[in-house]
Amino acid sequence: MSEFHSKIKTVEWVKTGDLKGVSRMVDQTLIPYEYKKVDITTTQQMYDAIKTMIVRGAPAIGISGAHGVALCAIELLEKDEQNFTDELKKGVEYLNSSRPTAVNLSWALNEQLKIIEKGGTKEQITKALIENAIKLENEDIEINKKIGDFGAQIVPKGATILTHCNAGALATVGYGTALGVVRSAYAKDNTIQVFADETRPRQQGARITTFELVEDGIPVTLITDGMCSYFMKKGMIDLVVVGADRIAANGDTANKIGTCTVAIAAKYYNVPFYIAAPKSTIDMSIKSGDEIPIELRSEEEVTIINGKRICAEGVKVINPSFDVTPNELIKGIITEEGIFKPNELHKLFMKS
Amino acid sequence: MSEFHSKIKTVEWVKTGDLKGVSRMVDQTLIPYEYKKVDITTTQQMYDAIKTMIVRGAPAIGISGAHGVALCAIELLEKDEQNFTDELKKGVEYLNSSRPTAVNLSWALNEQLKIIEKGGTKEQITKALIENAIKLENEDIEINKKIGDFGAQIVPKGATILTHCNAGALATVGYGTALGVVRSAYAKDNTIQVFADETRPRQQGARITTFELVEDGIPVTLITDGMCSYFMKKGMIDLVVVGADRIAANGDTANKIGTCTVAIAAKYYNVPFYIAAPKSTIDMSIKSGDEIPIELRSEEEVTIINGKRICAEGVKVINPSFDVTPNELIKGIITEEGIFKPNELHKLFMKS
Repeated sequence: MSEFHSKIKTVEWVKTGDLKGVSRMVDQTLIPYEYKKVDITTTQQMYDAIKTMIVRGAPAIGISGAHGVALCAIELLEKDEQNFTDELKKGVEYLNSSRPTAVNLSWALNEQLKIIEKGGTKEQITKALIENAIKLENEDIEINKKIGDFGAQIVPKGATILTHCNAGALATVGYGTALGVVRSAYAKDNTIQVFADETRPRQQGARITTFELVEDGIPVTLITDGMCSYFMKKGMIDLVVVGADRIAANGDTANKIGTCTVAIAAKYYNVPFYIAAPKSTIDMSIKSGDEIPIELRSEEEVTIINGKRICAEGVKVINPSFDVTPNELIKGIITEEGIFKPNELHKLFMKS
Repeated sequence: MSEFHSKIKTVEWVKTGDLKGVSRMVDQTLIPYEYKKVDITTTQQMYDAIKTMIVRGAPAIGISGAHGVALCAIELLEKDEQNFTDELKKGVEYLNSSRPTAVNLSWALNEQLKIIEKGGTKEQITKALIENAIKLENEDIEINKKIGDFGAQIVPKGATILTHCNAGALATVGYGTALGVVRSAYAKDNTIQVFADETRPRQQGARITTFELVEDGIPVTLITDGMCSYFMKKGMIDLVVVGADRIAANGDTANKIGTCTVAIAAKYYNVPFYIAAPKSTIDMSIKSGDEIPIELRSEEEVTIINGKRICAEGVKVINPSFDVTPNELIKGIITEEGIFKPNELHKLFMKS
């Protein structure tokens, strides 16, 4: 196994001076054609990077948001803004509006808000925001390794794991959630393999999951989204593990569009279906998945592939970016504190 | 409504002289970019046209096969082949090997074999094969209009119909099976609309179904394959109607890959799921779907879109072109002789 997963930092704070820095991130719109990092230096650039999916994946978006607040503070400091705290909070709000579904973004922004609320001089607040951004960034990898280790326990010997979209190193700061489970399982048993749904319309499975797994030398087979039931029926899939963008208190889980369709097929063929996600993806403030806002994205994501239109002019398109898998289809939610049934999530928050 | 569906002949025998002719067909690899017809003049060209999907769709492949036998006879006649009947049968066998799943091909070839078995001079056999090809071609449209009219009875007022792949005019000689139901329903009630799965990997839904329906002025919304459950959950899909490539005696139905995944989602959300297909798609010689041969096609259909690779090098691919929907997921099979439950198909054959 190559060390791709341990080298990669999808989003990384790079200091460029005293109270100065940039957010350096892998441009994921270029994967698998090019592996290139870009430096994000302003709040606006961070908003755009999240919105246009230069950075994507719920945990990676969260950390990017935290970086964005630090960048905002640096900008305000440099122009000697008098209403520093107010303008900073506006920046937080603006960043929060970039993508609505993944709760990790608002969770991380909220962690930064707590720093702002503590108060201090502009310099003190800016320093604290940078330090907190770096702390969250480092914790993310540790959390994912714990998720991976808990998850590896439920992977049978020689198993084939189906995953949807990309919940890998590139969806987090590093190591991954669903692919963290794959990596930890593979480290113990190199006879496991992965089936990756291509994940239309943005093809994160085809583009990013295959890239990550090939880099790590983990066997991966690419299939189209509609094929999942074919392989489940043949007994070729032992379990499904996917990431999450927001998990409601009752365990209903929003994840990339198409996930629920896979979960329904898994139930029909008795294939266990797991979510792998950090605690920060769980939103105890909402009772069920019905309350999760679902982002609608542009028609062009569906109608244009590799620069060419794939359908007739005059067709309508609806492009929901996520769906909600009902709790009854989920066997377990793999977190950094263990594996929980959908109806047990409250236990995670009583402990802390 | 434009008259696209009544003008179109996907595959048409064109006489070019005494005991001479060509099979003129829409090149479906060019849809929706270009609407162009090509003339197929030899057995080999017909084999290639079917194999490379210049013509596709179970009923259209069947008629193309019948044309192919007529072309084979003309070729043998022109070179004054001594073993005329034997060579003709070899041609039939060769055409039958072009695509394995759709039974309409072997059904139509068998109809031509019956003509060959009747015997006669080379000229008589050739003439009879041409006439029979034209007869089957004309009957196909009549059959589809009957399927459409029976099917229209189960479409509720103002319904939204989800379909997968293309079972339209371009999958048949004209009018279509699943889209025949849509056309007949729309003629009675112009408030119905269609949701079309794009149908990866070959995107017949995005390319061909949207093209046909936009041409006919029937409202159509394009979605990706994984989205079906999202819209079913929202109550936006009233019924699913798809075509078929082979239906076993017990009602298990092979259709384009991804169909079974849609059927499972439909069952979960209590959306009625129908098959629309001519009697010639029913294969009473096989008991269940387990016996239906599933064509595996090239990796490139999955890995390359619009000339560009969409995934990392080094990934494995499996590309089954069809899946089998179990009979328990099918509410009814709409044929030219009425609508039957999956366990009632024997009635169709007792009648004749």
